[in-house]
Order: sequence, then C-alpha cells, then structure tokens
Amino acid sequence: MPAITGNDYLERIDRLQTNVWIDGKLVTDNISKHPAFKGVMESQAALYDLQYDATCKDVMTYQSPSTGDSIGLSYLQPKSKEDLVKRRAMVQQWAKSNNGMMGRSPDYMNTVLMALASSVGLLEGKENCFPENILAFYEYARENDLSMTHTFIDPQVNRGQFYFEDSDEPIAAKVMDRNEAGIIIKGARLLATQGGITDEIMVISAGGVDDKAYGFAFSIPSNSHGLKFVCRESFVGGDSTFNYPLSSRYEEMDTIVVFDNVLVPWERVFYYDNIEVSNSFVALSSFLPFTLHQVVSRQIVKTEFVLGIVQSIIETINIGEYQHVQEKASEIIVALETMKALVMKSEIEAEIDEWGFMRPNRTTLQIAINIFPRVYPRFTEIIQLLGASGLMSIPTEKAFQSSVRKDLDQYLQAKSKNAEDRVKIFRLAWDLTMSSFGTRETLYERFFFGDPIKLSCELYRSYDKKPYVKRVNDILG
Amino acid sequence: MPAITGNDYLERIDRLQTNVWIDGKLVTDNISKHPAFKGVMESQAALYDLQYDATCKDVMTYQSPSTGDSIGLSYLQPKSKEDLVKRRAMVQQWAKSNNGMMGRSPDYMNTVLMALASSVGLLEGKENCFPENILAFYEYARENDLSMTHTFIDPQVNRGQFYFEDSDEPIAAKVMDRNEAGIIIKGARLLATQGGITDEIMVISAGGVDDKAYGFAFSIPSNSHGLKFVCRESFVGGDSTFNYPLSSRYEEMDTIVVFDNVLVPWERVFYYDNIEVSNSFVALSSFLPFTLHQVVSRQIVKTEFVLGIVQSIIETINIGEYQHVQEKASEIIVALETMKALVMKSEIEAEIDEWGFMRPNRTTLQIAINIFPRVYPRFTEIIQLLGASGLMSIPTEKAFQSSVRKDLDQYLQAKSKNAEDRVKIFRLAWDLTMSSFGTRETLYERFFFGDPIKLSCELYRSYDKKPYVKRVNDILG
Amino acid sequence: MPAITGNDYLERIDRLQTNVWIDGKLVTDNISKHPAFKGVMESQAALYDLQYDATCKDVMTYQSPSTGDSIGLSYLQPKSKEDLVKRRAMVQQWAKSNNGMMGRSPDYMNTVLMALASSVGLLEGKENCFPENILAFYEYARENDLSMTHTFIDPQVNRGQFYFEDSDEPIAAKVMDRNEAGIIIKGARLLATQGGITDEIMVISAGGVDDKAYGFAFSIPSNSHGLKFVCRESFVGGDSTFNYPLSSRYEEMDTIVVFDNVLVPWERVFYYDNIEVSNSFVALSSFLPFTLHQVVSRQIVKTEFVLGIVQSIIETINIGEYQHVQEKASEIIVALETMKALVMKSEIEAEIDEWGFMRPNRTTLQIAINIFPRVYPRFTEIIQLLGASGLMSIPTEKAFQSSVRKDLDQYLQAKSKNAEDRVKIFRLAWDLTMSSFGTRETLYERFFFGDPIKLSCELYRSYDKKPYVKRVNDILG
Amino acid sequence: MPAITGNDYLERIDRLQTNVWIDGKLVTDNISKHPAFKGVMESQAALYDLQYDATCKDVMTYQSPSTGDSIGLSYLQPKSKEDLVKRRAMVQQWAKSNNGMMGRSPDYMNTVLMALASSVGLLEGKENCFPENILAFYEYARENDLSMTHTFIDPQVNRGQFYFEDSDEPIAAKVMDRNEAGIIIKGARLLATQGGITDEIMVISAGGVDDKAYGFAFSIPSNSHGLKFVCRESFVGGDSTFNYPLSSRYEEMDTIVVFDNVLVPWERVFYYDNIEVSNSFVALSSFLPFTLHQVVSRQIVKTEFVLGIVQSIIETINIGEYQHVQEKASEIIVALETMKALVMKSEIEAEIDEWGFMRPNRTTLQIAINIFPRVYPRFTEIIQLLGASGLMSIPTEKAFQSSVRKDLDQYLQAKSKNAEDRVKIFRLAWDLTMSSFGTRETLYERFFFGDPIKLSCELYRSYDKKPYVKRVNDILG
Repeated sequence: MPAITGNDYLERIDRLQTNVWIDGKLVTDNISKHPAFKGVMESQAALYDLQYDATCKDVMTYQSPSTGDSIGLSYLQPKSKEDLVKRRAMVQQWAKSNNGMMGRSPDYMNTVLMALASSVGLLEGKENCFPENILAFYEYARENDLSMTHTFIDPQVNRGQFYFEDSDEPIAAKVMDRNEAGIIIKGARLLATQGGITDEIMVISAGGVDDKAYGFAFSIPSNSHGLKFVCRESFVGGDSTFNYPLSSRYEEMDTIVVFDNVLVPWERVFYYDNIEVSNSFVALSSFLPFTLHQVVSRQIVKTEFVLGIVQSIIETINIGEYQHVQEKASEIIVALETMKALVMKSEIEAEIDEWGFMRPNRTTLQIAINIFPRVYPRFTEIIQLLGASGLMSIPTEKAFQSSVRKDLDQYLQAKSKNAEDRVKIFRLAWDLTMSSFGTRETLYERFFFGDPIKLSCELYRSYDKKPYVKRVNDILG
Repeated sequence: MPAITGNDYLERIDRLQTNVWIDGKLVTDNISKHPAFKGVMESQAALYDLQYDATCKDVMTYQSPSTGDSIGLSYLQPKSKEDLVKRRAMVQQWAKSNNGMMGRSPDYMNTVLMALASSVGLLEGKENCFPENILAFYEYARENDLSMTHTFIDPQVNRGQFYFEDSDEPIAAKVMDRNEAGIIIKGARLLATQGGITDEIMVISAGGVDDKAYGFAFSIPSNSHGLKFVCRESFVGGDSTFNYPLSSRYEEMDTIVVFDNVLVPWERVFYYDNIEVSNSFVALSSFLPFTLHQVVSRQIVKTEFVLGIVQSIIETINIGEYQHVQEKASEIIVALETMKALVMKSEIEAEIDEWGFMRPNRTTLQIAINIFPRVYPRFTEIIQLLGASGLMSIPTEKAFQSSVRKDLDQYLQAKSKNAEDRVKIFRLAWDLTMSSFGTRETLYERFFFGDPIKLSCELYRSYDKKPYVKRVNDILG
Repeated sequence: MPAITGNDYLERIDRLQTNVWIDGKLVTDNISKHPAFKGVMESQAALYDLQYDATCKDVMTYQSPSTGDSIGLSYLQPKSKEDLVKRRAMVQQWAKSNNGMMGRSPDYMNTVLMALASSVGLLEGKENCFPENILAFYEYARENDLSMTHTFIDPQVNRGQFYFEDSDEPIAAKVMDRNEAGIIIKGARLLATQGGITDEIMVISAGGVDDKAYGFAFSIPSNSHGLKFVCRESFVGGDSTFNYPLSSRYEEMDTIVVFDNVLVPWERVFYYDNIEVSNSFVALSSFLPFTLHQVVSRQIVKTEFVLGIVQSIIETINIGEYQHVQEKASEIIVALETMKALVMKSEIEAEIDEWGFMRPNRTTLQIAINIFPRVYPRFTEIIQLLGASGLMSIPTEKAFQSSVRKDLDQYLQAKSKNAEDRVKIFRLAWDLTMSSFGTRETLYERFFFGDPIKLSCELYRSYDKKPYVKRVNDILG
Repeated sequence: MPAITGNDYLERIDRLQTNVWIDGKLVTDNISKHPAFKGVMESQAALYDLQYDATCKDVMTYQSPSTGDSIGLSYLQPKSKEDLVKRRAMVQQWAKSNNGMMGRSPDYMNTVLMALASSVGLLEGKENCFPENILAFYEYARENDLSMTHTFIDPQVNRGQFYFEDSDEPIAAKVMDRNEAGIIIKGARLLATQGGITDEIMVISAGGVDDKAYGFAFSIPSNSHGLKFVCRESFVGGDSTFNYPLSSRYEEMDTIVVFDNVLVPWERVFYYDNIEVSNSFVALSSFLPFTLHQVVSRQIVKTEFVLGIVQSIIETINIGEYQHVQEKASEIIVALETMKALVMKSEIEAEIDEWGFMRPNRTTLQIAINIFPRVYPRFTEIIQLLGASGLMSIPTEKAFQSSVRKDLDQYLQAKSKNAEDRVKIFRLAWDLTMSSFGTRETLYERFFFGDPIKLSCELYRSYDKKPYVKRVNDILG
C-alpha cells in the first residue's frame, strides 16, 4: 500500500475507536469530529494529502524498496548526504504548511522509528532483544504509512535525586508479567502528544533504568485492550480561524497514557528485561542524529514564521524606525540563520555509520537544541514587547460581524492595514504567544528534548575538549 | 453615605445599564450575571464587603471629613508618614484578598482621583481649568464610594515618531464642540480596564498634546449617552475555580472606549483647551507618587503570591535540593524584598508638598516600576521552568469527577500532595502564567506605566546625577 | 590611647617589619615606602587623619567607654537604630574619601571584631572557647585603633565535593600542637587582603569544619614568628595619578598567609578544638548583619562613583540623547537606589539581639549582597560599551608633557572637555574597569561574600517562605 | 620577490624609522627592539616564517600570477569555493600559532586590500577615482608581501547625532590641498592597530561623508613625511612569558595617526573628492564578505583557545562535576560550533560576483559578527566566575625562583597540577581576561566591526523579511 491520503488517515483513526478521555468523558463518536481533535486531525490529513499534491509529490515521497510504490519520505533511511538534504526538504515542506506549529507531525515519529530500525545491529545477540521485531515493524509502518505517538518519560511524582519508586501498584509503567502471548504492562507514562489520534503508540525506555521491569521498548496499536489516553484540558479556543488561527488548527493535545495490564504481543516487543540495553540503545543508536535533524529542520520553519509575525507587527503599527525595535527583530534573524547554519553543518559533517547509514553530525545538532529552547521563549517576549497594547485590543470575529464593526473599523485601523487585517495579525501573534495554545507551544519548545540544564551538561560531557586543552598546554610550554 | 458594601456595588452597576459590547453582542441583562463579568464583579464586591468586616474595618476605612462616616481609606489625602503607612496597609489588605491579581481594584482609581484633587492648586487661575470641579467630584466620589475606570492612551494606529493624526473623523478622542451644557467628545481611547463595570470613567490627557482639541480631563458616568465600551475577547476560562482559579475570579476585561459625540457637562470638566496644562498637570501633580505607591504596594503582594506558588511547586515535586532551583526561587525573593525596601524608602523619604500633602519619594517609586516590568515576566518563566511537564498534565475538574479519577489519583500523585491537590497547584500556576488570563496579566505588568524603555529614559533624565559627577571631578583634581 | 592619626598608622606598621614577600623578594625597608604599598598606605593614613578632621570628627569618632577618649566609631557596638545610622555615616564618610575603592578600609575588620565581641555569649561555657579573650582583644584593638586583616578561606587545591585533605604536611592551616604557651599553627590560608600592612591578622574558621584541627579562631600580630605574607603581583600601575588615578592610591594587595609553626599565645585564642563551635559561631553571631551593613554602605558609595563616571563619559562625548545610553545609565541608577533602600530597610527592621545589641535585618542585607556581585560587573560592561574607542585612546601623562601634546590637544578634545581632561576621565574609567587593578576590583566584588550561587542558595534556604505557601493553600481551599 | 621571512619583516620595518611616539618619547632605535613592540613584532615575524615552514608551506602560500613565486595566500583572489576553503585554512593556520590573539595579523589587511582590488570595477569611469592605482598597489603589496595597518574612524570628539565639525584646524583628517605631486592631508584618524610596525598605512573613508574633503582612500608608507603615530600606553606587562604569556607576545598597540600636511602621491590615491564613491565603495565592494570571512575564521580559533583555558581551569581545580560549571563551559561550546557553522554556511552559499570572484555569503557572516561581540565578553566573565580566587593567587616568576617557592609548591598545588603549572594556567587566564592587555582584547572584540547596536540595525535593515511576511499573509488569508 502506498503513501496514504488525508482521508485514509482520518478513516483509519476513527475506525480504531481508541479509548480517549477528555474533560471526564470518553470520546465515543468519531474522534475526527470531536471539537478538541478535529482541527489538528484535518491539519494532519492535509499533510498526508500533500503526498499526492502534484507540486510537491517528488519532495514528499520515494520508492518503496519492498514494492516500488511511492511512500512517505520521512521513512527513508539515508545513505548519502543527498538523502539528508532530501529528508530536510520533505520535513520543511510539511512544516511550511503549518508554519512548524505541529511538533508531532508524522515525520517526527517516522524518523524515530527509522532511526531505531537503522541501529538494530546494536541489539543483535543481546538477551531479551528482538531486532527482527523492530525491522518488521519499521517495514510495516513504512508500507502502511502509519502514524505514531510515543512516550519517553515517567510521571513527575518526585524529582528528588534519591527517590526510587517501590510501590507494588506501579506509577511508572512496568512489566508486571509475561506469558506466551507477550508481556503485560501496568502503570502510566507521560506525555503522549497526539495520543489517541495516531495508529500506534511506541513506548521506549531511554535511560535511567535501575530495575529491569522498567526497561523495555515496544509499539502497539492505540486501541490495544487496557490502553487509555487521558487528555489534559483542550486548548482549542474555538472553531473560528479568525479568532484562533492556530489553536483551531494545530492543537495536538498531550495525554497521560494509562496501561491497565496491557498485553504487548511478542512480535511487537523490541526489548525488555535488559537493563544495559535499556540504558544504552537509544543513546548509541542513530536516534539523536536523525531525530534532531527532523526537529531542527522544523524549528527553522517555525522561526521564519515568528520573524514574519514580528515584521508584520512592525509594519502594521510603523515602529520599524526605532533602534530597539530593529535590535529585537535582529535577534530573531540571528537565531534563524544560526539554526540554518547548524543544520547545514550537520549535513556536511555527516558520516556513514557502521551499518551504512549517513548520520548527520550529532554534536552540531545538539548545539541547535541547546539554543532553541532558550531563544524561542525570547521570541515570544519580543512579540509581546513590540505588540504591546495591540495584543489586548483583540475583539472577536463576531464583533466584526456586529454593529460595532464601524467603530472597530475606525478605531483599530493601522498604518498599513485596515482594522480587520490589523486585528487578524494581532490575534495571530496572540495565539502564538499568549493563548493557552501558544504558551503550551512555548513550554513544548522549552522542554522538547528535556530539561535545558541537562542538555547543557550532556553537551559539555560529550564534547571533545582535549585538542583545545592541548593548545593551552602548548603555549604554557 | 458611608463606604458601600459589595451588594451596593453590584446593584449600582447593574442599574447603570452601561453600553457594553462583547463578542458582537450588547450586554442587556444585569452585567453582574454575565459570564464574562460576574467573577470579577463578585471579587470586587468582596473587596467592598471587607469595609464592613470586623477584623479589618479599621484598616479599610477612616472618618469622612464631611460627615464623620466611615469611608474608604484609599480616598484619604495623606498628611503624614503615618497616613502613608495606613494607605499601604489598606491597599495591601485588599490586595491580599485577591493576591494582587486585580490591577484595577477600586483603590487604584480612588488614589488617582485623590492625587489630582490634592494638586488642584496647579490649576488655579489657569485658562479653561476648573479646579473646583475636581474637588467637588473628589468629594462626591469619596462620599459615595464610587468605582471608576480611566483611559490614558490613544489608539495605536501608527507609532512612528513623526505621525500626526489629521483626520476630520478623529481616531483619538477629541473635543469636537462645546455648548452651554458642556463639551462634546468624539473618538476613542484605549484601554479602559474594568470598563463597563465601574460607576464612572475618568479621561485625562497626560502629556504629548500638540493640538488643544486633544487636551482635556473629565469624569462622566459609565452610562453617559453616546459612550460605548467595546470589549476584547473574554479570558474567563469558565466557572470552575478548580480549572480556572484565577480567571474565574479576577478577569478585569479591557475595553476600547468609544465616544460618539458624548456630552461632558461643565461641572465634570476638569480642564480643556489648554495645551500647557494638558501636558504638565499630571506630571507636576502628586499623581505619580501617590499612584505608584498604590501600585507598588499591590505588586509586592502579587510577588508574595508568586513566591508561594513557586515554593508550592518545589515542595510538591520535591525539587528543592537542586542548586539551580534554589537560585531561581531566590530571584523571586530578591525581587520581593527589593520592592518592599523601595516602598519603605519612598515613605521614609516622603515630603510635604506645597499644599500640605505628604508625597512619597517619587524617584524611589520610579525605581520600583523600572524593576517590576522586567522581573515579573521572569517570574512566569521561572514557574514554567520549574513546573515543566507538570504544567501540561492538567486534567479538568470533570475528569476528577469521572471514572478516570482512580487513574489520576494513582498517576498524578506527588511527593507531598495527592493527585487532586497537585493538579490544583499546577492549574493555579498555569492560570497565572500560561492561560490567556495569565499572559494578559503579564502583559499588563510589563506595560503598567508604559513602555519599559521610556520608563528607563524618564528615570535617567529626571535623576540628579550632578553630585556624582562632582565626586569624579574631585578625584581628577 | 585615643583614635590614631595617619602617621601613627604608618609608623606602627613600618615598625613591625612584617615578613612580606613580593615578586620573590622580602620587603626589608619600611613597607610604607615600597612602591607596591605606599599608595594604599597613604590612602589608609588619610582615613585615620579624618578622625582628626574638624569637619567630620564627630562623624568619625565616639567616646571610649573605658577612657572617654575619642575613638574610631566603627568599633561602636550599636544599641539603637540611631547607632546604626551613625555607623553608616562613619563608614560612608571614609568610603567617600576613596569612592568605595578600599574594600578593606579598617572599618571593615573593626566591624568584624565588634560583631564577634558582641556575640561572645554564644561561647560561654563551651569547651575550648575563650570568650574573655575576644572581649579583651576587642577592647585592646578599640583602644589602640588597631588595623587588621583576616583570612576565611582555605587554599583552592580541589573544589570537588568529596575531596578531603589528608596530608601530614597540611595545606590548609591547622592546629599541629599545643603547649603551655599556646597553640601551634601550620599551613596556609587565602587571601588576606592588605596582608602585611595591618597590625594584626585574625584567622577564623567559618564553617565546613570536619576535623577539629581545622576549627579555631584567633588573632595575632602581623609580625608573629613564623608568619609570612606572600603577595600576588602588584597591580600598582605606577606613581602617576594621571595615568593610574586608582591603582596608584588604592591597590590593597592580596596575600597568601603562610603559618610555619606559628605560636598563637593562649590569650589570643578565641576558640579551638571544637567542631560544633567552629561551624556555628560565625553563623549565629552578629557577624553577618554587622559586617554586611558595613559592606553594603561602602558599595553604595562605590556605585555612586560608577554613576559619576558614566555620566562624565556621556557628557564628555555627548551621547546622552541616545535611548540605549539612557537605558544603560538608568541601570546603574536602579541599582544605586535599590542598594540604598535595602540598607535603609535593614536599619528600620533592626532588632535588639539577646545581648542587647541592635542587629540590622540580616535577610535584607543578604538581598543586597545577592544583587551587588551581579550588577557590579554589569557596571563595568556599561562603561566599556559607552566609552568604546575612548578607552583605547589613552596616552600617558608624559605624552602630555612632550611635544606631541599639541597633537593630543587638537585631536583628543571632546565636546565638553579639553583633551587632557578628557583623557583623565577615560583613564579613570579604564583604571576602574580595564586595568589589572580594576579587574581585580571586579573580581573582588563578584566574590566578596563567596560564590554567588552559594549566596543565592543560602538566601533561599534561610528565607521564610511558609506565609506565602499558606496564602496559596488558602486560595486552593 | 616571493613571500618574506620573519627576518625580512623585522629588517624592513626597522629600516623605515617611522615616526612613533610612546609615553612622550619618540622611538629612535630599532623599533623591533623596543619593549613595547618587540614581543608582537617577533610574533609577527614568526607568522612570516611559517611561510617557509615545510609542514605548512602549502597551506600558507600560492603561486604568484605575475612571477610564479610562492606568495602569501591571504592575497589570493578567490574564484571558487575551494579557494575560500584554502583562504580559511591559511587564516586559521596563522591564527593557531597565536591562538587568535593577533586581531591584526597581516592576513587581515591583505584581505582588505585584496577585496578592494577585486571590486575596482565599481570605480571605473567615476570622477576622481583611480582603480588602476588600487590594482597596482595590490600587485605591489602582494609581490612584496607588505604589511599594512589602516584607520577607518574619526576622532571621538562628539558623538551626538547632529554634530558636524567645522573647524579650519581639522580634527578628522581631510584633504587640505592638491598639487601636481598629489593630495595633502591634515588631521587625525583613530585607531591604527599595529600603527608604526607595518610597511604601509591604508586610509579609507567608509561612509558617513558629507563634505567631499573628508572622502578619500589611499595608502602610503608608514614613514611618509609628516605622518606620526601616537601610541596609547603599552599593555606589555613585561618580558616574562611566565608572568605575561599573552601581552609579552601579542600586544599589537593602538595608535592615533596624525597627518601633518602629509603628501599622498597621485599614484597612491585610490579616490578623493567624490562623496558618492566615498559613501558607497566599501559597502558595495566585496570588503565585508572577504574581510568578515577572515575575521570570523580567526575568532573561531580564539574561541577554541578560550574553551581550552576554561577546561584547563576546570580540570586543575576539579570543578567539572558541578552542573553550573558544565552549563557555563557549554555556553562556549555552543558559541564555538555556531561560529564554525556560520563560516561553513557562508562558504557553501558563496556566489560569484560580477567580476568573477567568489564572495562568501555576507548575511551569514554578519550574523557571526552580531554574535561574537556579545559572547566574547561573556567568555571572559565565565573564566572569572570559574577561576574565582585562583585569579588572585598569582605570584610571579621571580617568586618561584626565590626561597618562597617551597611555600608556593605546597600551598598552590592543585588537584591535577603542581603549583607552578597551576599558576601558569591561572596567569594565562588572567592575562586573557583581566590584565590591561586582556581587557583591551575584550574591548577590541566588542567593537571590531563597530557599535553592536548599529550592527544589529544594519542586519535588520539589509535582511530580506518579505518571504516570511508573505507566509503570515498566507495563513491570514
């Protein structure tokens, strides 16, 4: 089966009837019609449709090594630098259609799975490891254009250094039992973004495992028995794209994933009961280089969008002559070009790994994700500093459809825009930075790859500082 | 008539039937029952009720110089440092009841009016100035415990340096005509917070006036003919205090005020048609010292609340042992104690002005409002950095009332709190920093007294640097 | 003997013939004539002379409780808030004479000793503690107007968390032995500022003591047998006050103090061989409140000087119209007024301790020393950003005395100053921020009370956050 | 004549007997023996010697298009991306030999001249322009391996916005007259780094010219009649490389250049008396792309050195386990890799200009020089925060040669280094960040390409923001 269309996606997800709870209610009808999900699911469907859009089909797809069909390019295992460039073009094509607002567009998880499949060599011959299952699942997902979510982190019960959970009633998901059908999982995991609106959920232990019951990796369908997605409050402001240009389209939802003795069939178990592998596989695999390459490519598009909004505000209220305004806008330009340069460097310095795949330079991409969580919140601050009272004067679509419109037309007109267009740009800026949707985006970017301090420390520890120490020693003689 | 009760306030406002537009609809029923206003009006009513609360009545009121009745202490014209301390106690008593979340609790405008009334000497004998009207209105407001809003700024059409409006159809409110009944105002003003839920609206030109038609000051009832309040979107998340502990109570609303040939009767005109006075009265009056004293007193209480939330998060998820967590929390402590010190200094260095009123030290208070717009956004950042994924795991009240409660109880429990209490503290943190209500609060504090850069520049220009230059000259000989 | 004069000071120090090593040489002649010390010793002498200056004698001295003579006011044990104000006036009088550049003017150590003497009650009846020795030494120092230095920190061999020294040849100074004459100290201590140019050196364990041999407190004359002061490189640029307006006068020198089996006579031992006291005495005593009060009072005067320099630069090259320049200067104003407010608050909130002494509020002063190490380096940055190339165009005094003077006069003239005066102000700015002297000043302020991160953490831990957590609990119900 | 040796350089400069004034004295003997210059001149000589070093000769030189001789590669006019890579390799080879401390190693000016020569097409047929003179001088310099300095800025008399000099006695250098021999220049220019120790000085008006007398470009020998270099104070700490590992080698000196009716012969005039060209030539030429490419390549090497020093400090005193230490070090890593990525991007996105030369992408390099002046001062702050008291315990070489050595050996030993080696690394860190030499380096990097705010504004104005505004318009419909 070749790459799917938007409609395929919507129908497949509706058919699953996944166990999704929101605001105390189970979603019982088609989830694609639910107010909290329909906007983002339509946006996701539009992504899939791009795979059949004549203007960009070549960017979006490649030929399946199994069938020769056109399949989604984010599944491509890169073997050359050209392949990396292709991957970036695909990711950015999708990102441009939503201005990078969908942090979990399907290419993200496709890339994750592709990376793991490209590193199965690490699991060969290890106890309780099933590299063949990863490969089979990768091919299955690729050929069926599956959508996926995943969860990496345990509930935030206690973040003290010396806390270890010891309850019989587990909080963090763990292997409770195994039988001939598979392994039994009980407990919870945070925070599956798009949980409930994907075909599958992948669950991976990514380090920090002390007890083998907590070390495993697998993927199961979202509608597996005993699996439950508990949503946070929805941040969809409403249907109106005038009022909520972003949240009406891109609210991806975050969910707590509850495993109530969920059976993971053996053929979907990637590994379990192996502390060493649980703590090392993700780190040693090409997970980081490939996934970061996708992430940073998307963040670039998002940064371009921020710059567009900032410049639109500047022009709308004519503040471009002020030095401090120019300085603030140039902060965004600096970040944008820096991110672009880093992706480029990661591709140029890519190297073939031991299994023949072309890994972009990991350190370079780590630099990018050390930068972005710090600059993105600054972007939102800049928008607020420049938008100022304009971000408070935001009447709604219905106000423009009422008799006060003539007042709004007169009193909210701007230098280069009429009142309606001016309110639109400010509502967009507000939805990006000040609505509940927008602030969740900011939090998401702050913590995409974990605590910023930990990211710094990882960078420091993994970076080769010896040549520079040597240079110091040379001058000291 | 002595200080009013909450019920007096609600009834009086409902009775006005002010022309308030929200989301394209005119508010026709009692505004105090409208979902966008009822929370904040009840909170405001609760403030007035404190005037009759036996435990704090003495803090809240003083004896009317006209009638001997107990009246609201924020109307007190201070004549001694003790009076300043009393005023601060009153302001902070009110602020504590809402943790400083109501930027426009009535004491703010009461203070503004008291300050203007205390400076009417500046208007004596000036053309088109009516100091007696200010005094009469001050006494009337004081004795009737009026609530007020005001607007200081013109619409943000074009903020270029060399833009001057020249339309016949004015955008910024201006005097179009005068007759024996009064002056006629047409145009708009931004952004009246609490517009539509106060007895009166005061409109004051506070500088930057080039054309006398734009220079005036007056107060009129909110339901004056031709006066219209056009609301932005409401940021009340909903009724639930579990879900929206702040926005359900303290959403003050910001409005565009439209003057459609509004008649301001002569007895309510404070001045008009006098460029010099329009540009100097507010600056020379005790407006800044008294108003800033109120503002900073409230901001202190708000900062205490932020510290309480931060410490609650730290304890809830047990992160207090981390150095960087301690460092971030201590940033808030530093800001809090700094603000307290500055208010204290402003009182100690207060001086009697030429009309016998005790003005707190203005420069010291300017320092405080140069600091707060910079640190408050940092507070919200710290909350997000510490709260992290906890700010995304926020199921709603109804979720806790449904069958998923047992999952939430298990998986969202925290070190020192059960799941429900933990979600409550994170929802509170979210409502302060990430909901549409919370981000509007942040924007409000960023710009309370105007553009932060302009505040810096005003401080620089007004500060006496000569003694220090002299000291440099002394050492250089 | 009453308060001394400058000459008394110089003669007394010269007479000691303390063992001071600098640049590989022992100082053998009168140290007050040595190029590395004469400037600062003369400045110090000038301080003592102020005690006899008719214009400020009353500020500088008080009546000895023992003799009725006029003695140095920094020895005063405050018993009222008025006493605190007097102490501040005295400290700032001295500080103004050197613009706060002498971090170790004698009032600092006088205050330290006064604080310890005011807390001897803590040592009563404790093993190996001699409160009577502290009192006797305090009275002796006070009545003889002694100058002192001290050392608090151990050599920086290894700052890892789990490092414990175990050498027989101690690095950190320790008690090696005791005999009937006293205790024997061997090892080293860092960094005695003014080491070698004071009458006495006080050595105090201020916490972190695990081994009782490292826990002690005493004072001995600088010329004690076996005591050696090893200087760092001198940062005196030269004699010329034109070239080096600050380093020629205020270079206080930092020294490593080497104890080569130094005998501390029993009457000078304050405590030893008592881990609990070594770890708690300083913290529980009034050391911090009194010493911080002195420090912050001085830092205020220094900040005023910085503001004077910044404003002088602005006027000299006429950059005051630029918004970003005003903003930068206002940063200094904000810091200055904040520091003033904090000292004021610490005095207002002072309380009588259990021994009848009036302690300024410690928390408030901790705020100040959390702020200053962060803002002072920013001051130096602002000076560099505003001074720009002017800080590179700094010819010397001799250049102005040579035939190139006419070129300098023409080409280095400034808007409001002739070339010579302009170069003087820039040389002053350079000596404050860019000379080896100036950068050492910056480092000194960065670390005056220890690592800034530790100061943050101490503040966080000692601050009472409970009332604010309670307020959060109240709103959550 | 092929590329020169170090000895050639020294002899040639000594022979010039240029008019150099320092500390009120004319340099009369060989300048290469003068204490203020000998270190840097030897370092510069060592650079030239590398052109004959078998291990890197190929990197350092290329074949002269005129003679086929090996000549300095920084003169190469790049025609391909490979040429850019070669140029970078050459620049970084030189930079590594001094760790990027020589901001004006000859490749800088060679690049400037090469860039101008590559853009002479802009001068063709313009009034008072002599493109042939630039080409001839370029070839002469290239074939004789000339060293050069230059000056771009006018004296900092008055930086107000509306100041125009109108004196007959000019302050800024201007054309006073012309005759058949050439043009006559009078006035001064700032700040020629290496002024007096180069063969030639180039003087170029780079914009902001209102009066044609101030618009010109030329190059003349340093010993031209009437030309005088007035030095600032020397920042050479002394001869000892132990004490002053950097200033003893790399103090490049900054000079005021005085033109006392200096004749510039016609064949050395590039243009004059043409306001339009004076204001546009440098901006339109390849000056920025080529020069920034050199600058940023050098800054990368310097950043590597900073990282080496930071890591050496961390290891020496064993502080690598602290999170905040790792975070600070990683800031440097982030900056280093960012700079590398930007240079790489500038090369990949290089384009052939209209004259067939391969210009690196200018915008990308502008990003780099917007970043570096902000991060470099932070590097020096990080070194101070990590080095702490270690930067104060810096005895001199002679101390280690004296009898106190045994004390130093014992008390200054570090975790991974003996006392001498530990002091060496701290003295190096001190010389980079705290000596007068080091702080001048910091100022130099802060302002290398002008006021950081202006650099921001230029970036903002020149950057193409339209595509991103369009994307915003697309989503708003």
